[in-house]
Amino acid sequence: MDRLAATRDEIDLNADVGESFGPWPMGADDDLIPLVSSVNVACGAHAGDPATILRTVALAISHGVVVGAHPGYPDLAGFGRRELDMTPADLRASLVVQIGAVQAAARLGGTTVRHVKPHGALYNRAARDERTATTIAEAVRDLDPGLVLVGLAESRSIAAGRAAGLAFSEEAFADRRYEADGSLRSRLRAGALLGPEDAAAQALAIARDRTVVAGDGSRLSVRADTICIHGDSPDAVAIAMAVRAALIGAGIRIASRPPDG
Amino acid sequence: MDRLAATRDEIDLNADVGESFGPWPMGADDDLIPLVSSVNVACGAHAGDPATILRTVALAISHGVVVGAHPGYPDLAGFGRRELDMTPADLRASLVVQIGAVQAAARLGGTTVRHVKPHGALYNRAARDERTATTIAEAVRDLDPGLVLVGLAESRSIAAGRAAGLAFSEEAFADRRYEADGSLRSRLRAGALLGPEDAAAQALAIARDRTVVAGDGSRLSVRADTICIHGDSPDAVAIAMAVRAALIGAGIRIASRPPDG
Amino acid sequence: MDRLAATRDEIDLNADVGESFGPWPMGADDDLIPLVSSVNVACGAHAGDPATILRTVALAISHGVVVGAHPGYPDLAGFGRRELDMTPADLRASLVVQIGAVQAAARLGGTTVRHVKPHGALYNRAARDERTATTIAEAVRDLDPGLVLVGLAESRSIAAGRAAGLAFSEEAFADRRYEADGSLRSRLRAGALLGPEDAAAQALAIARDRTVVAGDGSRLSVRADTICIHGDSPDAVAIAMAVRAALIGAGIRIASRPPDG
Amino acid sequence: MDRLAATRDEIDLNADVGESFGPWPMGADDDLIPLVSSVNVACGAHAGDPATILRTVALAISHGVVVGAHPGYPDLAGFGRRELDMTPADLRASLVVQIGAVQAAARLGGTTVRHVKPHGALYNRAARDERTATTIAEAVRDLDPGLVLVGLAESRSIAAGRAAGLAFSEEAFADRRYEADGSLRSRLRAGALLGPEDAAAQALAIARDRTVVAGDGSRLSVRADTICIHGDSPDAVAIAMAVRAALIGAGIRIASRPPDG
Repeated sequence: MDRLAATRDEIDLNADVGESFGPWPMGADDDLIPLVSSVNVACGAHAGDPATILRTVALAISHGVVVGAHPGYPDLAGFGRRELDMTPADLRASLVVQIGAVQAAARLGGTTVRHVKPHGALYNRAARDERTATTIAEAVRDLDPGLVLVGLAESRSIAAGRAAGLAFSEEAFADRRYEADGSLRSRLRAGALLGPEDAAAQALAIARDRTVVAGDGSRLSVRADTICIHGDSPDAVAIAMAVRAALIGAGIRIASRPPDG
Repeated sequence: MDRLAATRDEIDLNADVGESFGPWPMGADDDLIPLVSSVNVACGAHAGDPATILRTVALAISHGVVVGAHPGYPDLAGFGRRELDMTPADLRASLVVQIGAVQAAARLGGTTVRHVKPHGALYNRAARDERTATTIAEAVRDLDPGLVLVGLAESRSIAAGRAAGLAFSEEAFADRRYEADGSLRSRLRAGALLGPEDAAAQALAIARDRTVVAGDGSRLSVRADTICIHGDSPDAVAIAMAVRAALIGAGIRIASRPPDG
Repeated sequence: MDRLAATRDEIDLNADVGESFGPWPMGADDDLIPLVSSVNVACGAHAGDPATILRTVALAISHGVVVGAHPGYPDLAGFGRRELDMTPADLRASLVVQIGAVQAAARLGGTTVRHVKPHGALYNRAARDERTATTIAEAVRDLDPGLVLVGLAESRSIAAGRAAGLAFSEEAFADRRYEADGSLRSRLRAGALLGPEDAAAQALAIARDRTVVAGDGSRLSVRADTICIHGDSPDAVAIAMAVRAALIGAGIRIASRPPDG
Repeated sequence: MDRLAATRDEIDLNADVGESFGPWPMGADDDLIPLVSSVNVACGAHAGDPATILRTVALAISHGVVVGAHPGYPDLAGFGRRELDMTPADLRASLVVQIGAVQAAARLGGTTVRHVKPHGALYNRAARDERTATTIAEAVRDLDPGLVLVGLAESRSIAAGRAAGLAFSEEAFADRRYEADGSLRSRLRAGALLGPEDAAAQALAIARDRTVVAGDGSRLSVRADTICIHGDSPDAVAIAMAVRAALIGAGIRIASRPPDG
């Protein structure tokens, strides 16, 4: 996280959505989707039943929000938050089928899936493990080379997307505390989650200054094309509103931008 | 089944494939796929995990066999053979996501899904229940109006496909005994399943004469664009070979034909 | 519902609990369990993952609340609210395994499962369909003849329990409007759900007078050993508190009573 | 594997059974069960639907074979052969519920579950990872301290069982090649699987001499109370028959023996 980066006047705000399952709601998609510029729709493996997928994609379309797929490990009970030791071939197949589910829902609604952002344990593993990152990037490219890969900024996930010839979008977080080494503070530690005011300040720093202030007060350089608002936070809507207000007040447009290069 | 129909010189042979799940194989796809002109690939709901879907579609492509989707009730343990009282909205969503899975696998292999044939209890219900038939036909059309709907010949399923403006393909069976009323004899009754020789004769009668001889010896008129070989029969490969030989010997081409109208 | 019945001084209050799944909470078990005298714990088929089963049983034990099993159709996405056309043998096996799950959790906590109350579509089907009712009653008896069967008051479910030689507990509802024919008003119709005050009055009428006032103002005779508080109502805790207050104020003890006969 | 051990005149033969699921058969339980002295019944998480659990337990009872539970990671598609990063609490709960399923089936058939043998990736992990081994041993003990824990001979799994105060049964393999370090040769390498004749010789060496000849010709000391016949081998029945003949011919009784100490 030491790359210099110019001030920018536009950023994407994204949210993970469609994570209800059957009778069990999750998140505040109805309120959150209108506040972001792109969404990542759960694909039925870690969350999201078919009716939820269709409803969520239709809601995004109705608000003009860009639709992406949010595949995870096939493990509903664990919500895709625990590692599952899949072979590359099984992971590839799972990704293709998961993304295909959201693509079908998008086609039904007259749009297309623009990007893919892995979920949970798969996102984290792709950020650090080259084989996982490459399996994901190649599955996405082989399915549709026009898809954008979203991953943790400056991680192996992004490197694999670049190597696969995919457009990519680097992600930073408004509502999570960064540590001095650039990692996110564990949710198990105090101060890991930021409230609306701090999240707004962090989003502005990311978008305008390309920096974040870490837990120890040090300032980190961070490169981000998109900022994530976690939909499963109880404050998600308040955070999204505060982040929007801060960005717009600083003259920064919130829009789902085309991929780098 | 009283429509007169002319002798024809071409017919589609189809098989339900990709019905393995995880460690559990089913059918003889490797041997059967080269013998048919189109396949219906299980979509992961009643059978078929993602790796199986990709492998099966790739196998069909390698043999130049036309790829279709074979969605069923989401009930692995029951193999889609027992009715599940889904709302039309839930059934529609399930179909879209299931077909989307096979579409993604097809896209990965450089082809497209040409048709949709419901499975098991869903196939049977669509044949007799207008609401189910209409839900299926409209889901297929709204996902892609170029898809062909495959259903039991002269059933509500076909009527709903026609009403939805879809091309359709009417199906008859080579390896099952028909009753005098045009229904299939229950698998629970003796004589329900035909061996290779009888199946070949029945296939030839369907393709050339547009008739079948029912269990009571009466001759029924039957209109069919495609003949199904059940892949889960122990004799499936022998039946397919006998049917092919009989048809080809009678000068009938085996090919996946374009839809009516 | 025409059986005469004497005023009583004790009634069971029950609630369906443990219906969370993985990351998705449902109900207010922590607050509701201390207010009832027995609970019906979801068994992992329509809801309830293993950790939830253990936690819920432990919570019931800690409050001295009687533990029962609450098996349903194996259909998470549908929450056991849609009929699944299982064979009697498959239904029997599913019930045995589901009840076994809660029995194991109870054994771990030093108690035993006292009763079985089917859930959702299975409860409703058992109330009207003799074959389903008999399959349930015989599975429960064959697993443990000391189990109590809970079912809709004066329904086929209870008749089958009696025929199987099981103790049984007839159930009425505090928080749902009855129709003049003794059925519950559909949740889809206005006025189906009662608020705390009306629920308290209805519970008192059931417990003390063995009557309910139906939607058309007529008074029905109703025999009940147990009154259900629906945990998935947003008002569940308020309803339970109001019902308790009304019953206790009228000198009626709330306790999980031994079965009839 | 360097412990001296006396010649013995009795050994247990065990098989993993009940690993069918819904429409998909696995193994040759009907033929294999009569040939062994104990079985490990899949519990519905990695394999085995409820009807299969009941049928398999009934089959074992009818042949006088001792019934055990065979819990695995909850991952049907992966057949419990890939690691799933469960928390100890979630693993404990999963085990309790899985064992409870087989206990209920056993109770229905008038017997009890005598032992627990973990499956696949869970078995392997427990053999080398103390935390996993302890979680398993304590879950088994807390559910029923009379249960016997079956694990890889001289592994952490056995050590944890001993520490938890459980009786245990150490397992060796007739039909798999051992390496010089006492590990099993990977199924991916040539010569990993032994045929009937070699398996019979190895079983006899294990039972009578407490040794095996490793792949490099060296002789290892091995301590085993039970010998596993893998039911998913195509040769399973032939292997079991050859092993029986060899053992019986050498005067060794095949019986499910009470636990050590």
